[in-house]
Amino acid sequence: MKKIYFDNVATTKTNKEVLKTYKELLDNYYCNSDALYDGGVEIYNMLEKSRENIARLLKVEKEEIIFTSGASEANSTAIKGLCLKNQNKKHIISSIYEHSSVHNALKQLEDEFGYDITYLKPNEFGVIEVKDVENNLRQDTILVSIMLVNNEIGAINNIDEIKKIVKKHPGTYFHSDITQGVGKIDIDFKDIDLASFSAHKIHGLKGSGVLVKKKHVELLPLINGGQQEFGVRGGTSNALVDIVLAKTLRITLENKDNDNKIIKELNKYFKERIKEIPEIKINLENSIDNLINISTPIKSEVLLNALNNQGIMVSSKSTCGSKKNELNRALKAIGVDEDYAIRVSFDHENTKEEIDYFITCLKENIKRYG
Amino acid sequence: MKKIYFDNVATTKTNKEVLKTYKELLDNYYCNSDALYDGGVEIYNMLEKSRENIARLLKVEKEEIIFTSGASEANSTAIKGLCLKNQNKKHIISSIYEHSSVHNALKQLEDEFGYDITYLKPNEFGVIEVKDVENNLRQDTILVSIMLVNNEIGAINNIDEIKKIVKKHPGTYFHSDITQGVGKIDIDFKDIDLASFSAHKIHGLKGSGVLVKKKHVELLPLINGGQQEFGVRGGTSNALVDIVLAKTLRITLENKDNDNKIIKELNKYFKERIKEIPEIKINLENSIDNLINISTPIKSEVLLNALNNQGIMVSSKSTCGSKKNELNRALKAIGVDEDYAIRVSFDHENTKEEIDYFITCLKENIKRYG
Repeated sequence: MKKIYFDNVATTKTNKEVLKTYKELLDNYYCNSDALYDGGVEIYNMLEKSRENIARLLKVEKEEIIFTSGASEANSTAIKGLCLKNQNKKHIISSIYEHSSVHNALKQLEDEFGYDITYLKPNEFGVIEVKDVENNLRQDTILVSIMLVNNEIGAINNIDEIKKIVKKHPGTYFHSDITQGVGKIDIDFKDIDLASFSAHKIHGLKGSGVLVKKKHVELLPLINGGQQEFGVRGGTSNALVDIVLAKTLRITLENKDNDNKIIKELNKYFKERIKEIPEIKINLENSIDNLINISTPIKSEVLLNALNNQGIMVSSKSTCGSKKNELNRALKAIGVDEDYAIRVSFDHENTKEEIDYFITCLKENIKRYG
Repeated sequence: MKKIYFDNVATTKTNKEVLKTYKELLDNYYCNSDALYDGGVEIYNMLEKSRENIARLLKVEKEEIIFTSGASEANSTAIKGLCLKNQNKKHIISSIYEHSSVHNALKQLEDEFGYDITYLKPNEFGVIEVKDVENNLRQDTILVSIMLVNNEIGAINNIDEIKKIVKKHPGTYFHSDITQGVGKIDIDFKDIDLASFSAHKIHGLKGSGVLVKKKHVELLPLINGGQQEFGVRGGTSNALVDIVLAKTLRITLENKDNDNKIIKELNKYFKERIKEIPEIKINLENSIDNLINISTPIKSEVLLNALNNQGIMVSSKSTCGSKKNELNRALKAIGVDEDYAIRVSFDHENTKEEIDYFITCLKENIKRYG
């Protein structure tokens, strides 16, 4: 059966070049990158070169790149590491629809450490209003954490304006989970104090991510250990994985314009074709091009199952909460019934033919179950 | 040049079968293991099978295996996760020579959260006395954390006796960093509440580890996120890495007796041959077979460098602290001057010929620099 992967916000296929390089590294290197003999030093130098390359690509400094096991670790470290280091201020501003790693880190600070969290709701376009951030800033606000692109509805937040507001408020830091924005949106890291992303959402490896931590930001390490990652993140470096992350990011950013052009066309084509099915509603018109959230007359679990049997992989909400009875906070915030919503997410390797097949299947399913 | 790897406590070469399986998985699977379509379910089932197999090998329950990015994450999660969840008791007993991930997690609890830590010193044989644990237990002791095998001098602690003492003291939990003991020593997990180890010390992949967390133990998650790992550890599962960890552990335990026999012979041979150099002192006679810590008349940094030029990879202390001016707490505790000590650590693939070459080089170096 034909297999169509339309769940690129959950994870992406690993880039073939990245995979090839990674496998070659695995065949040839095993030393601990902190070992002092030649075998260790060689890997250490490659690791640091990778850090340097990532820093250059993001236009930050080498010492501001912290390798982690993924975006969830980076988010947890940024938020809890910063706040628990600065417990004299206990107010945080965030949004109601952050990824579970942010949301649950905040909940933990609230429930266990007495923090006061303001959870901002998005406007009707799914976007967090900059003025809401401004109006909620307090003397004791230690952190503002707002994601760049929401992973369930694809709303894009104006973090350029939000960071300016935070910057004017000394003693408050700005963190952004940029996981769904890397390679999609130009990100200017100036005045972003902390940012998190993972490799596997940009065709890299799972178990790999980056915390961008500006030099002036002090954190309590979450994962304790030795000298690794400037003392901010312990544990034997996962050096080969960290090394290929530079390649992953370079390929992503080099092909960005071209890939996004393809995705834009897919988005346009999808929206045109979906009009043929009057029962379908697009839940957020102004979403990021690679993510379209739609409502159908069929219960999403029934539809997902039917599509699965037709070889189509899509999802209804964040995969991290796929099996829990966890609310889709983004859909709720924009007033959409999550029980009938699915999200379709493209990458540049998807095709119009795949969309055609999807539309055909969707029509069939609506006829059968709608 | 001939290359001799005598630093197996820092990391190990990846087992060829493990590597082969891992590369095949990488070529064939990319879906998010929490996705609900077939591609996700297939990986999820393999992941859970791996968890089941690991649980069976360790004779614990499936729900007690938490996959992590390594032992440092597992140690940090066990210690801080447990203590911060139970802040009504703020006393901890540990040893002075724990791995930096344990030591610095304890320091953090001490410095930032007001915990009172008793750091036990080892006796002259490098071993933590069971009676010292017993004598220091208090009403407010929440945790006893003692490593099974020390990574710098190879002392083996009697955790079977320690856990019995802790068990008699309701409300106190026992954690052990068993990283250097897995595959070397039979470990009975009964009455061990929490245990941590990594894959890369048993010929597995870096960025991979396990926290054994008994079902009655409640933790604050360190890495927040979704439903993964029973809610204890968030982040998209590094499923392929977790899957091969079961294979890694199985191979390690299946070959344990045979491998340890080889290592025992290497140890014996090494100690015999080292007698030829009267300037050399063995720092701990009763160490674990795969680790021999010796003192020489040459400054260790000079000797390591000379050996490196002769193709021999050894180290002077924990690799996680190799570049920091960090004390070798284990050597200090047994009264050895760390500036002249090196540790030699074998695996079952090392040979007597390699030891012969090492002895020859050592003699040369002592003649030259001693």
